[in-house]
Order: sequence, then structure tokens, then C-alpha cells
Amino acid sequence: MSTNKVISIDAMGGDNSPGIILEGLSIALNNFDNFSVILYGDKDKINNEIKKNSINTNKVEIIHCDKVVPMDAKPIDAIRKIGKESSMWGCIKSVSDSNADVALSAGNTGALMGLSAIILKKLEGIERPAIASYWPNINGRSVVLDLGANVEVSSDQLVQFGILGYAYALTVLEKENPSIGLLNIGHEEMKGTENIQDASKKMMNLFNENYVGYVEGDDISLGKSDIVVTDGFTGNIALKTAEGTAKLIAHFMSDAFKKSFLGKLSYLVGIKSFQALKDKMDPRELNGGVFLGLNGLVVKSHGGTDAIGFSKAIEFSLKLSHSKMSKTIKGLVNKNI
Amino acid sequence: MSTNKVISIDAMGGDNSPGIILEGLSIALNNFDNFSVILYGDKDKINNEIKKNSINTNKVEIIHCDKVVPMDAKPIDAIRKIGKESSMWGCIKSVSDSNADVALSAGNTGALMGLSAIILKKLEGIERPAIASYWPNINGRSVVLDLGANVEVSSDQLVQFGILGYAYALTVLEKENPSIGLLNIGHEEMKGTENIQDASKKMMNLFNENYVGYVEGDDISLGKSDIVVTDGFTGNIALKTAEGTAKLIAHFMSDAFKKSFLGKLSYLVGIKSFQALKDKMDPRELNGGVFLGLNGLVVKSHGGTDAIGFSKAIEFSLKLSHSKMSKTIKGLVNKNI
Repeated sequence: MSTNKVISIDAMGGDNSPGIILEGLSIALNNFDNFSVILYGDKDKINNEIKKNSINTNKVEIIHCDKVVPMDAKPIDAIRKIGKESSMWGCIKSVSDSNADVALSAGNTGALMGLSAIILKKLEGIERPAIASYWPNINGRSVVLDLGANVEVSSDQLVQFGILGYAYALTVLEKENPSIGLLNIGHEEMKGTENIQDASKKMMNLFNENYVGYVEGDDISLGKSDIVVTDGFTGNIALKTAEGTAKLIAHFMSDAFKKSFLGKLSYLVGIKSFQALKDKMDPRELNGGVFLGLNGLVVKSHGGTDAIGFSKAIEFSLKLSHSKMSKTIKGLVNKNI
Repeated sequence: MSTNKVISIDAMGGDNSPGIILEGLSIALNNFDNFSVILYGDKDKINNEIKKNSINTNKVEIIHCDKVVPMDAKPIDAIRKIGKESSMWGCIKSVSDSNADVALSAGNTGALMGLSAIILKKLEGIERPAIASYWPNINGRSVVLDLGANVEVSSDQLVQFGILGYAYALTVLEKENPSIGLLNIGHEEMKGTENIQDASKKMMNLFNENYVGYVEGDDISLGKSDIVVTDGFTGNIALKTAEGTAKLIAHFMSDAFKKSFLGKLSYLVGIKSFQALKDKMDPRELNGGVFLGLNGLVVKSHGGTDAIGFSKAIEFSLKLSHSKMSKTIKGLVNKNI
């Protein structure tokens, strides 16, 4: 990761912008020196935060934007009513104009996807772009997609998600021979909808021995496949259910150890182990979903993340821009669709 | 829970039957004395296990059945090919003949649902029976349905699940004024499929202020509503994803504490807290999904559970048979459908 890369950042996206965004940038700039950024948003507010965080302005360009896409705006309004003057639009446009290698926003997911599709255009052969993200498992990490861009999909679109995920697994997860599974409610052939059964046959033909067949909800965390393909509705429910379960267990844990003297003592004695566990369960480590299937890279940070979480999304954007993912996707799509 | 209840048990269902089934029964008989059982299955094998576990035969009747429904049989084959001679059929029939108050099986879920619908018949007004189960959350427990019986459902069927879940929450969770939510990928009105949006409007009209609107995947464990309604595909994926996440965290935990001397010491000092946490996360505690929407009670135990898990399913069956759930469901269905 030696060459310098440029990340365009929507400084106004997310629940606590631009404060969290600039604080996160400051952390990332301290950790990595092989990138610079173009910040889109309210110039005065951004400059304020730059001073507050003592950010080196050599690495930063600011492009003022008058408008912001609200977190609850409908995608269609972000496109038609708010339009080209928003920080989100500018941030994505920067990639289509080749001024930046990757766009990053913590803003409204639906609007970010809508604008990305309009500005960057879909890759030829891909009907619907998908959101993909890391998922921790017993063996390391897998990639799950779609995580919420497409509520209803055809069997062909599921196969296309498979190809996109395959490229991600090869280049970002760095798996030489990634295994791919299709999320379903059982392992048997007759399980699930006709649509899924149809997609399964197509994936079997396309991926051959790399296709492991159906995987169930628990198989994701058990690492049964490197790639898990599903529609955006199911993927989003699965992701958030996992987040909720982790929060519930953290709650049970704090409850179990705070109640008694021995529990508290155990915590003090094992503080390093507790910290290691906390780090493993920290959702900020995996912050950053990438939109796959577009002519250009767009990363979505969690809207409610903190500065450390946003710095991780910058780190992930940097990793993507240095990877061969975009090239690999194009190659696989040309060959297989 | 004073009156004696009769539970009919499919002694041949599940991965390790009839061994686990009889061992579980032995545990339950030691804990509760207000029930007796009718066991359906291979008489010799059952008698063997009864001796092995020193079970008091005063509480046990055995009805010999020649056939078993395999764990991977298609529902249609369980109905047509295997038919009336299976232990599963007999176990359910026992409820329709009023010989038992509730049927319990750890066997093939699809077959159990198929046979139950044929033998017990659906309640008038309910188009599709659903599987409901406890879900632990920060405030206690909620009920989630459907967990896998219906892959695709209409908006009216989702509303019917709501009514069934409402009766469960009133009588089994013992909530006076239960709140009800519809699982979706966002809280905003425009989220999800048309089907879900349609169901939401109907539930708003029917449940009024008890309806809290859409809940997301993480809201289940955070206890945003006492009842979570969803289709069987999504519910099953959510449930299994939560189970997988809990297993992953348990794995991380054992990893974090086994690696160092201080980690091990911390475990010894806090062993009671670790045990309390383990108990809280023990899926056996919540073993037992109930089929709602039928003329009679059927409980499904996890197929791979152990004896303690099966004893919990017996305990749950007993609780259901003593509850006013069936009566409440009939009342609500008559009033609202």
C-alpha cells in the first residue's frame, strides 16, 4: 500500500457530522500516510473541525456544498429535489470524474445507493448493485451480500451477487479458492422459495465445486462459506439480528460480572482477556459496506458510528482502493455474464 | 399448575431417540409431578430406556408404532407413504382424540406441521398455522413468529400471525398489554415490500396503540416489542443467525480466557459469573416452538437437543397445557377475523 490514493468524503453524512467525520479523519491520518482526501460539505463547519482536530491541511481539499441529504430523505428526493448541490452528490461525482479513487459517506443508505447508480452507472451485465460487508466467523471473515440495497431480487440477480462476492473474496478477503453459499432455511434441495432453488441450480453450474449449496443462518458465523449470497431484505435482517444478539450478550455479561464481589474481582484479574473479547466483538472494526456492481467504488459507513468507527471506514476504503477488486469484478462479469 | 395433564410424546423423533427422549422425560418427572405421558414408538426400545432411566411406569403409557418419520422425509411422504402407523401421527392423533392435552415431538419440522394440519385441522379464520417461540431480550422475553412454517405469506396472513402472537403474549408471556411489531429493514413507512407495508396498515387498524410499527433485526434482542411478526423464511434466518452469533461469541470467549494464565485465573475466580452467563445463553432453556392456529397444541423440540433440552420442552408443553392460550386464541380469532 505505497501509492497515494484519494478518498472523497461526504463530510455532512451520518448522525453527528461533520464532527465525527473530521475526528475520524484525524485518527486515520495519524495511522496511514498514503492517502489524501477531498471533503464535500459546509466549508466553515469543516474548517472549524479541522482546527479543533489539528488536521494537517496538506492532505485535505475542501469543496463547499450548499446542501445536505437528510438521513430520512427518500432516494428519489435526494436525486430530484436536492440534486447536484448536495455533499453526497459531490462526493460520488468526484469518483466518476476520476478525482478520487473511492467515495465514502455515513449518510442515508438508500440515497447513497440511488445517487451512486445514477452518477457512476451500473456495470454492464449487473442489473442491481448490492451492498457487501465483512462478517466475522470462527475461521476469520466472510463476505455477505446483499445487505439491504434490493428488497426483492430475481434468481439471476442472486447469481450476479455471487459473482460480485466472489471477486470481493478473492481480492479483499484474499482467499485463493473461495467457497460460496446461498442463504436458505435448510440444506435440503426442496427448501426455500422457487426463486432460491432456481438460483441454486444456476450457481451450481457457474461456480462448480466452489459452490457449497445452501447455508443456514447459523452457518454464517460458523464460517461454512467465504461468501454468503442473499437478497437485501434477508441480509439486512440477518446482519441487524446478529448485531442485536451481540448487544444482548454484552448486556448479560456486564450483568453477570457486576453483581458480585467475585465477579468484579474476576473482571480485574482477567481485564486483558475481557478487553480482547470486547475488541473481537467491536462492530467498529468492521465498519464499512461497499456498493458492488458500479463503475467506481463507494463505501457506506454506519450512520451512527463514532470517530474510531469512521476511521475504520476510511481504512477500509483505502484497502479497497489499493486492492484489485474493481478489476477482478470487471473480468469476472465480462467472462460470466 | 395443580391439575394433572397428559402429554403425548413422539418417542422416535429427533437425532438421538428414543434415548434422549426418555432421559429427558426422567428429568421432567423428577421436577414436576402434575403430568403423565403417552409414549408413541417402538415398545421394546422404549421399555429398554425406561429401565435404564428407572422411570416410574405409573406415569407412562406406551403405544407401539411400527413406523418412524425420518428427519429428512418430505412432509408429503410423511402423510401419504408413511401414514397413520408412524409414532408422529399417533402422537398428534392423541390430541385430536382428546387423550392428551398437548403433543410433543423432536422430529422433522415440516412433517410435524403437515401432519398436525391434517389431523388437528386449522382453526377457522387462520389460513396458515405458524411456529412461535420465546426470544430472550434485554427486558425478559418476547415471542417471534413465524419461525419457519411458511416461506411466503400474504399481508392478511401476517395479520393472523399477529393475532396468534398476541394471544401467546397475553397468556404464556403473561403480558397484560403486549406491544406488537412487524419485522422490517427500517422504521420508515416506505421500507420493505408492498406486502409488509400493507400488513402494517392492517395491523395499525387492528391493534391500535399496541402496534409499535416496524421493528428491525436488532430490535428483537433489544426488546422493542413483546411480539415480533414476520414470514417463516425471515424468521427462521433471524433465529438461526442469532444462534450462530451466540456460538461465535462463546467461541471468542473461550479463546480469550484460555490463552493466558491471568485469563484462566479470572475464569476460576469468576466461575459463578461465567456459569450465570452460560445459563443465560443456554439455548436449551428456550427449547420448544409451538404450532399456533390449529385445533390443538403441538410443540416442536429442537431435533438435536440433549436430555436437559428435551426436559425443558416437556416443561414448556406442560406450561402451555395449563395456560389459557388456546381459549384466548379462539376468542381473538372469532372476534377479529
